[in-house]
Amino acid sequence: MNIILLSGGSGKRLWPLSNDIRSKQFIKMFKNNEGEYESMVQRVYRQIKSVDPDANITIATSKKQVSTINNQLGGRVAVCVEPARRDTFPAIALAAAFLKSEKGVSEDEAVLVCPVDPYVEDSYFEALKELFELAQKGCYRLNLMGVEPTYPSEKYGYIIPEETTHVSKVEEFKEKPSKEAAEQYIGQGALWNCGVFAFKLGYLLEIAHRHINFDSYLDIYSSYEALEKISFDYAVVEHESSIGCLRYSGEWKDIGSWNTFAEEMSETAIGKATLNEACKNTNVINELNIPILCMGCKDMIIAASGDGILVSDKEQSSYIKPYAEVMDTQAMYAEKSWGSYTVLDVNDSSMVIKVVLMPGHRMYYHSHEHRDEVWTIVSGTGTAVIDGEERSVKPGDVITMGAGCRHTIIADSELNVIEVQMGEDISVEDKIKYEL
Amino acid sequence: MNIILLSGGSGKRLWPLSNDIRSKQFIKMFKNNEGEYESMVQRVYRQIKSVDPDANITIATSKKQVSTINNQLGGRVAVCVEPARRDTFPAIALAAAFLKSEKGVSEDEAVLVCPVDPYVEDSYFEALKELFELAQKGCYRLNLMGVEPTYPSEKYGYIIPEETTHVSKVEEFKEKPSKEAAEQYIGQGALWNCGVFAFKLGYLLEIAHRHINFDSYLDIYSSYEALEKISFDYAVVEHESSIGCLRYSGEWKDIGSWNTFAEEMSETAIGKATLNEACKNTNVINELNIPILCMGCKDMIIAASGDGILVSDKEQSSYIKPYAEVMDTQAMYAEKSWGSYTVLDVNDSSMVIKVVLMPGHRMYYHSHEHRDEVWTIVSGTGTAVIDGEERSVKPGDVITMGAGCRHTIIADSELNVIEVQMGEDISVEDKIKYEL
Repeated sequence: MNIILLSGGSGKRLWPLSNDIRSKQFIKMFKNNEGEYESMVQRVYRQIKSVDPDANITIATSKKQVSTINNQLGGRVAVCVEPARRDTFPAIALAAAFLKSEKGVSEDEAVLVCPVDPYVEDSYFEALKELFELAQKGCYRLNLMGVEPTYPSEKYGYIIPEETTHVSKVEEFKEKPSKEAAEQYIGQGALWNCGVFAFKLGYLLEIAHRHINFDSYLDIYSSYEALEKISFDYAVVEHESSIGCLRYSGEWKDIGSWNTFAEEMSETAIGKATLNEACKNTNVINELNIPILCMGCKDMIIAASGDGILVSDKEQSSYIKPYAEVMDTQAMYAEKSWGSYTVLDVNDSSMVIKVVLMPGHRMYYHSHEHRDEVWTIVSGTGTAVIDGEERSVKPGDVITMGAGCRHTIIADSELNVIEVQMGEDISVEDKIKYEL
Repeated sequence: MNIILLSGGSGKRLWPLSNDIRSKQFIKMFKNNEGEYESMVQRVYRQIKSVDPDANITIATSKKQVSTINNQLGGRVAVCVEPARRDTFPAIALAAAFLKSEKGVSEDEAVLVCPVDPYVEDSYFEALKELFELAQKGCYRLNLMGVEPTYPSEKYGYIIPEETTHVSKVEEFKEKPSKEAAEQYIGQGALWNCGVFAFKLGYLLEIAHRHINFDSYLDIYSSYEALEKISFDYAVVEHESSIGCLRYSGEWKDIGSWNTFAEEMSETAIGKATLNEACKNTNVINELNIPILCMGCKDMIIAASGDGILVSDKEQSSYIKPYAEVMDTQAMYAEKSWGSYTVLDVNDSSMVIKVVLMPGHRMYYHSHEHRDEVWTIVSGTGTAVIDGEERSVKPGDVITMGAGCRHTIIADSELNVIEVQMGEDISVEDKIKYEL
């Protein structure tokens, strides 16, 4: 099956574990069967492949996430990069054009669109496959998945089907109703809209041509920033009369807050943490290298990363957004396509960074205008290129680079490098890239 | 006046801010009149000097604390170093011999002994001065200060005076009574024993000679490890019939737990911290460089340092000791007589340290057998000595030192150095010191 996973914005709802660079879907906090921690993206990828090993997966996302996706999925998915943030319709139109032009998907093939972060059982992806087949049959032009509600939530959209059969035509939609209205809809057999759509590729391209003037994927890509912000619901769903929906009765969770995240943690604590016996209903996620001791904590979530520390009552944690948004933090840790970096120390005119390069990877060949740098290789081997000259590096080697010096390093085995940056005006923007 | 301040063991009751190297009395958490944070030791020193600018202050302590005392009080006090941990009687006997031999105090002069960490108003030190004068007059051989109790505490010792006059002969002592007994003693005019003693120097030296075979301070010092562990109460107080006590009615606090510490904090938070409106009766002390966000925390204390993070209900925090004791942490931050060091990163075979040297100071001239080191000077100037050769250093300079290389650095202005240590067996014990 062809599947487009929409990988959304950064979001600070899971601060300090999510930041401008790392969105919640990349936090490794779920244990897989091998006992290793995986992120939402890794979990969803694994689940899709388990129901359809040949699934053709494309992740639609912003530039910022590309490095992390490559790092976590190692090039096993196609990535369709949105040059700017528009709404869901331009994003899906771009991905549809990408599937046609770049992946050779025919207009008669069905395509599934699904958020990248549902926290669900494998049966959800079985249902997704069924929805894909339904779209491929073509009984309805647009096909949705509806989740059987477990309570009259006021925060979801409701699909009202004509019948309560496994597959039904959709009668109408109700957006975020009151609790009373929600109860009434549920009595009629209504379903939660979980943001999953399926259609034939040609169907969506035709609608896209009505809104956007383009011939190819590259056309949309290059004019993307000028496109109107418009949601898929508004541009497509509202105008469509032929909509079918498939009823899914398994568990489905939208993990968007610390509270829901904590509910799904398989253990009380991840990372170095001690909770005394007086603690109750408390979860700790500690990415720092120092221990956390909790005593008498009740109904709390404690999360620590290089960006900061959250100590919150579980219910209160849902109000985090405005606080996290003004939190004056530099991202202290980032995954890159080539490895990772961690900020160890920040001073007025110096910074210390730990750089980890994965075997076979390298950073950009680059220079800085306003700072000098010193590399100390602490483990691994590789090749440094300094102002055009290659030299092998091993643990204990030190390389000094003045401002203006072009440099990169290529890892043979995993390389750990301590980088000391010195200058009056240290900034991530101060970087000039070159071809090697 | 002559005053011996007893500076006790490390104690983990204020973990993670106190550790094996830094005892609670060195944590800078009280604001002085200039709005700067000062430690208990600094506060007590300042208070003593304000009531008696000529006070002759000696701090009796262990080797471990000497660097920190010099760092915080800058050589303005004498330090009498206990070569090992014995009980209070050997410690006071050693300090008494130190006063006689090293400071030339005559046997007819009075001496005050006081814990280094009472959290009190200046009036307490006025009373101390009065007690000193009482001892100097010689009405009683031993003179104690008694604090008027504010509640029937079960954790203090009680002094029962013969009369409730300002100064009275002591009738008897009662150690940690039940609440009911405490109430009865208070009704009789009993006082809390706050661990303050005053006597003539000759008095104590005579008792010391009865227990210990010595001629001079150096005699006690060199045989110190072999001395019997015995408390001052047991060796002196219990056998003395001529004891007077002075009644002190001001505020007196023994700050030994996070709970009492939090009560004395002048602000809700020290360091980078945000508390939302739903927080109540919660204090934060953050020594880390990253922010702490608290939401809906009630009656809590949150303390973070390079050693770890405590998140505790205030009442529960009094049970911290056994947890803190098993906490597997390396001290990540330490004050030294020459400045400070901070551990930035620890790996299997490397460590990154930030070293700050104060102007005019230097570290020992030393070498390591099992590790190589790289210094990068990030700010300040000074002179490095590497295998006997001197060289000036400035920001940007890099010095590499193989195992066995002798090295030190002397700061002209404040020097900030990033030190990368590399080796299979990195340990603080791996240090050979040399004369420069």
